[in-house]
This record gives sequence, structure tokens and C-alpha cells, in this order.
Amino acid sequence: MELWYTEKQTDNVGITCKVNRTLHTETSPFQRIDVLETKQFGRMLLLDGLVMTTEKDEFVYHEMIAQVPLNTHPDPQRVLVIGGGDGGSLREVTRHPKVRQATLCEIDARVIEVCQEYFPAIANALRGNPKAEILVADGIAHIQERPHYYDVILIDSTDPIGAAEGLFTLDFYRQVYKSLKEDGIMAAQTESPFYDLNLVRKIYKNIEQVFPVTKLYLASIPTYPSGLWSFTLGSKRYDPEQVKEADIPDMPMQYYTAQIHKAAFNLPKFIDDALKTL
Amino acid sequence: MELWYTEKQTDNVGITCKVNRTLHTETSPFQRIDVLETKQFGRMLLLDGLVMTTEKDEFVYHEMIAQVPLNTHPDPQRVLVIGGGDGGSLREVTRHPKVRQATLCEIDARVIEVCQEYFPAIANALRGNPKAEILVADGIAHIQERPHYYDVILIDSTDPIGAAEGLFTLDFYRQVYKSLKEDGIMAAQTESPFYDLNLVRKIYKNIEQVFPVTKLYLASIPTYPSGLWSFTLGSKRYDPEQVKEADIPDMPMQYYTAQIHKAAFNLPKFIDDALKTL
Repeated sequence: MELWYTEKQTDNVGITCKVNRTLHTETSPFQRIDVLETKQFGRMLLLDGLVMTTEKDEFVYHEMIAQVPLNTHPDPQRVLVIGGGDGGSLREVTRHPKVRQATLCEIDARVIEVCQEYFPAIANALRGNPKAEILVADGIAHIQERPHYYDVILIDSTDPIGAAEGLFTLDFYRQVYKSLKEDGIMAAQTESPFYDLNLVRKIYKNIEQVFPVTKLYLASIPTYPSGLWSFTLGSKRYDPEQVKEADIPDMPMQYYTAQIHKAAFNLPKFIDDALKTL
Repeated sequence: MELWYTEKQTDNVGITCKVNRTLHTETSPFQRIDVLETKQFGRMLLLDGLVMTTEKDEFVYHEMIAQVPLNTHPDPQRVLVIGGGDGGSLREVTRHPKVRQATLCEIDARVIEVCQEYFPAIANALRGNPKAEILVADGIAHIQERPHYYDVILIDSTDPIGAAEGLFTLDFYRQVYKSLKEDGIMAAQTESPFYDLNLVRKIYKNIEQVFPVTKLYLASIPTYPSGLWSFTLGSKRYDPEQVKEADIPDMPMQYYTAQIHKAAFNLPKFIDDALKTL
């Protein structure tokens, strides 16, 4: 018998993966959580049936959401990850040499616990890391408690439906702005330009209303819809495209390089055009 | 009833698309040819069950296989497309202002005819274009008949199984080299770095044995395996990364820009590392 899992990425297209077995399934107070063992991508985490991360391609998303803003900031000492209960973004933050405090604020404790059990290489900073502060709390409430506090905030959320809807609003980005220091930077995962260009533009326009420097960047993630994923960086002062290669620390990477840092901001014409449209 | 078409992109992962209806199906002397009308991507051409092109995302592949080498060459007057019976690469070549003669050499006349019927916007250069020369012939034989003739050769083939296997060999690239003028350039589609990195490397190493300048570049194509596709450019003289932006003609594009031309050569670390491995 062959078992295949199909995620409908839109109403009309999906990715289908051969599954060895289901390792875990539960419904937490916030969402359904599944861990599958796939042939192509190794272990796969799904929330409400959507692929969040896999062992084989997680490096792209986590390096790119974290290292681009971290290396845009000259001294990212205090960093917050909102969401990201799998720990991958936190791992990237804690291994950055300049970071002193890495706070994770995840609303669903069960995501953290499940990932600690099934994804040790992704979740390794979630336990026993001296730089890490792990909070099970609402990210929107948390940033209101820490005004003018963080150098970098990463918004590592699920899609803008259900629990994460509030993490894509204009009001939320204003709160993020207030929780950042005077030269702070945020970066957020902001969906697929091929399948949902209007949504990408809408989020970008929200962030652009709040941050003087707003730039979209891209990475290739096979298990995410269309394989091309966008991130939006909002910055109070520093321009991510002006970073000097010599200032980027030499760390082991699988996707990110100093050249990729810059190349990722060069957008295909149809995306660039969409962002320029009012 | 819902009809879905699933292409297994490897043994363990696939893309699945909602289908309105099948517009055409036949078996030519070379391959099975299908045209589906999909909800997500419009009309879709499949050869032996593999997605070749779709109305919605064809612009990425065709702009990138053609415009990158065309704009690397200072005066691409004579250009050959091997394969590419859908006409998309030929369309890109014929609309380039410096091209005077655009030859298409496709082995399967039925692909040309089917695409003329079902993909008029892709196939528009296949009929009545004064720059175009359409040959139904074996590309390997054709280049041997025209030594030292072309400025640019595009290898717009199917995957290296079956009919196209000979278009990925060291001997074939040597023939391509001979059919190019002393400052000629070739570009080929060279598969998915995420799903078949060893194959990408093997093809790259073959081309590198023949051309003094060999560089891999990337583009995001949702309907191709993993969503990230590689092209390899082999050049006798010109370096594609040294092109001056001012020399790139101003043409309507959906994906390609002068900035994308350069950014596409910045490779994720795991790909760069693989190409450096002997």
C-alpha cells in the first residue's frame, strides 16, 4: 500500500508526498498538529494540514527569515521571534555571534513540545540554550509589554487565516515598530508571489506604511506553495541592500551567502510591478 | 466530479492540478502529447506525462533560457533553438532587436502543430515570422551541418531520458561548441537542484569541459519540480555576469530584468558547493 499526503496549496493546485508513516497527530487548543515521515523531505510538520517545515528543506526558510535581517543590523543583540514554535528561526538567531538574547514567543506550547520530540535538529535551541528565552504567549500582547526593546523582530507565523490573522494587520506592524529600538528591523514571512500576489502586495503596503525602509526578498522553498516564497523586511534605518559583504559573519550555511543576501532583493518584473502599483 | 492531474516529479513527490478538461491527446512517433486545461495555470502542455509549459508560468522559463544568453552576447544575429517545439523560446529570440535569423530545430513535428493550435500566444513565432526558420529535424545532426555558424544556441530539451538523452552528453556539447562562432554562447535547461543535484552537477561538469566560461543560473518556475530550475550557460568569450545594464535592450518582460540577469547567477550555498566538488 502506498500512502500519499496531498496539501491543496490553493483550491486548484497541490503538492503530494509519499509517506512512510504518521509519527504524531493531535489537536491542540489552537490547531491540528501532524508529523509525517515522508520519503522526499524526511520528517514534515503540518499545522491544520499545511506544510510548515521539513527536515530536508527547512534550512532555506530559517536561514533566510533570520540571517537577512540579523546581518542588516550592525549589532543585533536582542531578537524576538513571534511564532516559530518549531525552533528553526530561534536556532538561526542563537547561533549568530552578535545576539545576546533570543526570545521566542509562541502561542501554542504543543508545537514546541512536538518539535522538541520529532525535530531535534530544528528545535535544538528550544531547551538549555543560555541565550534563549522561551515564552508561551500571544505575540501581540508580548510586544506591547516591551516597548523600545528589540533590535530585530522576526514574524515567523502561519498563514493569515485563523490564529495568525492578527499578525498581518497594519495595527500589528505599528506595535512591532514600537517594540523595536530606534534603529530596529523586522522581517516577516509574507506568502507566495505566484499564487497570491495581491496578498503579498497588501502585506507589503501595510509594512510600508509603518517602516521608512521596506523591501521584499525571495527564497526558493520546494515544499511551500509555488516553490517561491516572499519575506518582507521593514527597517527604521538600515538598508538591507547596503550591507557590506565584509560585515557578514562567516558562519556555516546551506542556502544563505553574502551574495544571496543581495540577490534575494532583485525581484522578477511581475512582482516588482505589483509592489509599485498603488 | 473533480478531475486532477498529478505529475510524479520524483518517485516520492508530485504536483497535482485541477483540470477542467482534456483538450488534446495523441501519441506521436516520439512521445505522448497531452494538452490539459487547468484551473491554476490555464492550458498545460505535457510530453510523456511531464509538464513542459503552461500559459500562466511559461514566461519565466522562456525569458530566462533566451534573454540571459542573448543579452550576454553583444551581437546575437544568428540563433538556434534545439527542441522547444512549443515556440516559446523562439518567440523570445525573434523579438530580440539584434537577432536576424532564428532557427528552430525540433524533432517532433506534432509538438509544433499541437502548440500552434492550442498555445497561440506561446507559438506565435512558429508561423509567418520573417526571422524564423523552422526545421523538423534532429538537432544533433543539424549542428553538424552548420559549423562555425551560430552566435547563440539554446538547448530547450525535455529531460535527459528517452529522445533528449543525447542532448546532455559531453560529445553533444563539443558539437555545439563547433557550431558556434568564435565568440558564441550556449544555454541549456539543466534540471532541478533540489531534487537532482547530482544530475545538475554532472551536466555542468560536461559543459565546463568544453566552454572556457561556464556558469549556472536559476529561475523560479512553479510547475517544474521543486519550483526552482537551473540553466547552464557555456560561453567562448563573454561573461554573463559582466554585462552592462545599459547594454540590455528595453523590452517588455514579465520576469527578466537587468537586475535579475545578474542575481540569477548568485547560487544558494548548497548548489555552489556541489558545483565546486570534483
